[in-house]
Amino acid sequence: MPSLTFRHAKATDLPSLLKLLADDAIAQSRTGYTEEVGPAIQTAFEEITADPNNELIVGEQDGQVVATLQLTYIPGLGRGGLRRALVEAVRVRSDLRGQRIGEALMVDAMERARARGCGLIQLTTDKRRHEAQRFYARLGFVASHEGMKRPL
Amino acid sequence: MPSLTFRHAKATDLPSLLKLLADDAIAQSRTGYTEEVGPAIQTAFEEITADPNNELIVGEQDGQVVATLQLTYIPGLGRGGLRRALVEAVRVRSDLRGQRIGEALMVDAMERARARGCGLIQLTTDKRRHEAQRFYARLGFVASHEGMKRPL
Repeated sequence: MPSLTFRHAKATDLPSLLKLLADDAIAQSRTGYTEEVGPAIQTAFEEITADPNNELIVGEQDGQVVATLQLTYIPGLGRGGLRRALVEAVRVRSDLRGQRIGEALMVDAMERARARGCGLIQLTTDKRRHEAQRFYARLGFVASHEGMKRPL
Repeated sequence: MPSLTFRHAKATDLPSLLKLLADDAIAQSRTGYTEEVGPAIQTAFEEITADPNNELIVGEQDGQVVATLQLTYIPGLGRGGLRRALVEAVRVRSDLRGQRIGEALMVDAMERARARGCGLIQLTTDKRRHEAQRFYARLGFVASHEGMKRPL
């Protein structure tokens, strides 16, 4: 396997990142989906990178963006003041699946979360993504919660 | 119903907040649970209040803390750069349930999230909390996702 590295996203990654995020039937079916780097995307990117509690991670192989996820570190009073990490927008390039890139991406995320003092990592995954649920279960995640969402 | 108001938590609310968070069998069963305002709780509180993307909300009635929740605002590239709000640690004092305090608390949270430009609000709720799931469904939340967690 060619060497796979993980780093923070840069503004120049945005076109590749949007392509990755759109490389998914469920995501494409959602309102507001776009591959265009418009002002709302630019603003969101700037907010993510300016916020010390957010990290947008890029997996790179042979100079190409092949995977991504976003981490948010959240302080909380519960469980004795436990800090948690939330994972959002996990993607691996569809033609590269089955090569354990996703596993390496998630292991990297768990290391980052531990280094930030998190005692828990959590995510929600669309109930239609059965393969994703098996993948996360293999990594030690337990589907103990209902993930509930509401448009505003 | 005596008037119910919502505001940001203050350090002097911490003992009441921890009591509220502990007023729950599922929470009590979790590792690290404590009612004592120790240094980890103090640090978590300071981090929450210092972070412009976190709000710790307190519901007050007759000068007493009767409800709480935490909001985290998360910028993201998905769905056209949609900002989302995450809700954690929702509690209503157990002897005051059935008085629509929880509903007012969540309506207040949704208003705050909208005012912050969020297009989506989300939460995870323990699968054993059937009443909570019905409550959130009445407020328009859809259990479309699995909520998966892993200790670190």
